[in-house]
Amino acid sequence: MRNILLIGAGRSSSFLIKYFLDEAQQQDWKLTVADVSLSLAQSKTANHARSRAIAFDINNEVQRKEEIAGADMVISMLPANMHMQVAKECVELKKHLSTASYVSKEMQQLHVNAMKDGVALLNECGLDPGIDHMSAMKIIDKVKAEGSEISSFKSYCGGLVAPESNDNPWGYKFSWNPRNVILAGQGTAKFIENGKYRYLPYNRLFAESERVVVEGCGTFDGYANRDSLSYRPLYHLEKIPTMLRGTLRQSGYCKAWNVFVQLGLTDDSYTVDNSASLTYAQLVEAFLPADQKNGSLKSRLAAFMNVNENSEEIKMVEWTGILEIKPIDLERATPAMVLQQLLERKWMLKADDKDMIVMQHEFEIKNRNSEVSTVRSELVVTGEDSVFTAMAKTVGLPLAITSKLILNGDIKARGVLVPVTKEIYEPVLSELEKHNIVFSER
Amino acid sequence: MRNILLIGAGRSSSFLIKYFLDEAQQQDWKLTVADVSLSLAQSKTANHARSRAIAFDINNEVQRKEEIAGADMVISMLPANMHMQVAKECVELKKHLSTASYVSKEMQQLHVNAMKDGVALLNECGLDPGIDHMSAMKIIDKVKAEGSEISSFKSYCGGLVAPESNDNPWGYKFSWNPRNVILAGQGTAKFIENGKYRYLPYNRLFAESERVVVEGCGTFDGYANRDSLSYRPLYHLEKIPTMLRGTLRQSGYCKAWNVFVQLGLTDDSYTVDNSASLTYAQLVEAFLPADQKNGSLKSRLAAFMNVNENSEEIKMVEWTGILEIKPIDLERATPAMVLQQLLERKWMLKADDKDMIVMQHEFEIKNRNSEVSTVRSELVVTGEDSVFTAMAKTVGLPLAITSKLILNGDIKARGVLVPVTKEIYEPVLSELEKHNIVFSER
Repeated sequence: MRNILLIGAGRSSSFLIKYFLDEAQQQDWKLTVADVSLSLAQSKTANHARSRAIAFDINNEVQRKEEIAGADMVISMLPANMHMQVAKECVELKKHLSTASYVSKEMQQLHVNAMKDGVALLNECGLDPGIDHMSAMKIIDKVKAEGSEISSFKSYCGGLVAPESNDNPWGYKFSWNPRNVILAGQGTAKFIENGKYRYLPYNRLFAESERVVVEGCGTFDGYANRDSLSYRPLYHLEKIPTMLRGTLRQSGYCKAWNVFVQLGLTDDSYTVDNSASLTYAQLVEAFLPADQKNGSLKSRLAAFMNVNENSEEIKMVEWTGILEIKPIDLERATPAMVLQQLLERKWMLKADDKDMIVMQHEFEIKNRNSEVSTVRSELVVTGEDSVFTAMAKTVGLPLAITSKLILNGDIKARGVLVPVTKEIYEPVLSELEKHNIVFSER
Repeated sequence: MRNILLIGAGRSSSFLIKYFLDEAQQQDWKLTVADVSLSLAQSKTANHARSRAIAFDINNEVQRKEEIAGADMVISMLPANMHMQVAKECVELKKHLSTASYVSKEMQQLHVNAMKDGVALLNECGLDPGIDHMSAMKIIDKVKAEGSEISSFKSYCGGLVAPESNDNPWGYKFSWNPRNVILAGQGTAKFIENGKYRYLPYNRLFAESERVVVEGCGTFDGYANRDSLSYRPLYHLEKIPTMLRGTLRQSGYCKAWNVFVQLGLTDDSYTVDNSASLTYAQLVEAFLPADQKNGSLKSRLAAFMNVNENSEEIKMVEWTGILEIKPIDLERATPAMVLQQLLERKWMLKADDKDMIVMQHEFEIKNRNSEVSTVRSELVVTGEDSVFTAMAKTVGLPLAITSKLILNGDIKARGVLVPVTKEIYEPVLSELEKHNIVFSER
């Protein structure tokens, strides 16, 4: 029997746990679900014979060592900054580890030791990063094998709400960490276009979004992610003239979000001194230029943005409730925290709501005869409800499948890994297809 | 004989050293000037009989302890983040310390021990912070003593170039740390106006500057400093409805600087991958929206900013050389570093150039009969040349004078201090007047 230790039973773990339990008998697995909250862990394992739910404190060294020592494979669904305590223990105790997070500098430093001890530390193995790497590399390797060349690669991904569950003008509901949505894009987006580096600072990011059409799914806004350049070496496209990675939102979202950015409401770097005693309207007022003294808050906001009061973006902002004379009721909050609290109520997935994942890769390919063609590879996944979300499915299944492949000796690479090699992406993509995670090409 | 140890002989120390040496005989002082560069220290002491110049390494614990142990008073002109090593030693060895920097959290934590051991750690004792505190508190205390009330306090300060030495459209030359000028205002400015909190994010700061008229000196742009709110408790004006602190620049500067901000050229958070092989024009190109494809770089920049190509701000930006096809020649530089290097050449004080300090306090005062009046207190100081600058004078003399007052027992307060009490500001302001640092009221 092989023991699997899953640390963290939060919202992205539903499909992951289901997969392990569904296959437990056949694969001779026992799954331990470890979470700060015992009841949460128990609710996820539901007394399955091959499961065990435990209360787990990552800072309890004795327990941490004991649980990892007893496992053959560890999956960490902890917040990204908490993986290292697990990873170090895994190398020391010679246990394999999977995460869905980006490889941090500290993680990368474990590479040599992990190699030496025959340990796989597989990261970036969820949706984005994860499925994006695998599906992109499959096409890139194929194109290269044909002797063709890729001159442009634009890749977008978004976690949205399915049209049938959409009841708000933003076309958005939270299917993962709300804080990341509020703070998205802070810093400067870096990418390359036609051989020229491009830099897009945060204050222009949402104003300068692109239009992205996904076949049979709709038209979206795409805004550039912070770092597209590091994907050139990762994908072995060091000299590619155009490389852009971005995030998808429903058409119109970016223009409206830009209102929050321009006001300064997404700032998380300081607390509003008297946030608990302010109303939302007063907070917005505090961000508006003082020289606009006449008219309603809404009309002055529209004037500040230099748009009509009846424009879509002002209506969308109004819909959030941020213009209302209602108490914020949050102590020592940053503007971003106020916005997050407000939107968490407005953008909550209801029990039966379905979320939707949309991913698009767009390649420009020049073949041996210098003929240029455009290939689009697209993925649309719709969730079942607010627990079995498309997000949980696309994040969890790649983690589950790679864990199986490592346990069964089908992934032989060791050290700090990212799923960009054929050994990993081929079996994973092929099994994902059985779960209806299928890319269509056009 | 009393020994004075001055650590750091950089550009703001000229008047400070002159003061100590001029008074050394009469006060029975010996001055040690300690700097990483022995030759710099030597050039400042010029073999004065009561001076000693030494090469000094702040990280050399033996030397640090020895020099501080031998001193009666220490002045640290080190960068702000390096004061703590000196301050801790000062408390341990029971030596007084002066700095021109803001009280850090770590500094504040030394308060109880410094009190206990009878040590004065006097901070914020230069120009801004320094003379601003002293001159403001003098008026605030006087107004309160008269039974009047202050309903508004706006205070601006700027280190500029004197009109007779101005030969550029920005009306600016560097008289202190250039890096701070490039990064000025990043974050969100917080102040209060008519009882309402106001927040002004960086991307709007320079676009929404105010017009400030200084009697007999000119009209300036004033942009809000990051934190005006903390001055309410510091000045015992906890309930004041309007409190704003800001920075002065020549009229037109802010509008032009806003072009750099909007492009993203003041960002210091990432390096431009290929900065060494780019031209300035290419860098600007990388920040311009890609959809602007026709016309000169200058005309596209003007279109991006939605202004005329012949507008003042575009001409000013062009003057800096940032639109030129010249190699940047700087490895792994952030955009802010590129801008700094460029402007350091353009905004350098020439040997005979005179700088200029302008400070303005504007109070709205309600007397016992509820009559409201406006009082403006203004300071204009012009430098002698690029060494004996107004900046060095206004930063150095308050430090020198307070050091004398501490050594002679005229400042008796102990612990972590800021010059907001009568015991400190009265004798300092009175002696500053003898050096022609005089506020005029109107």
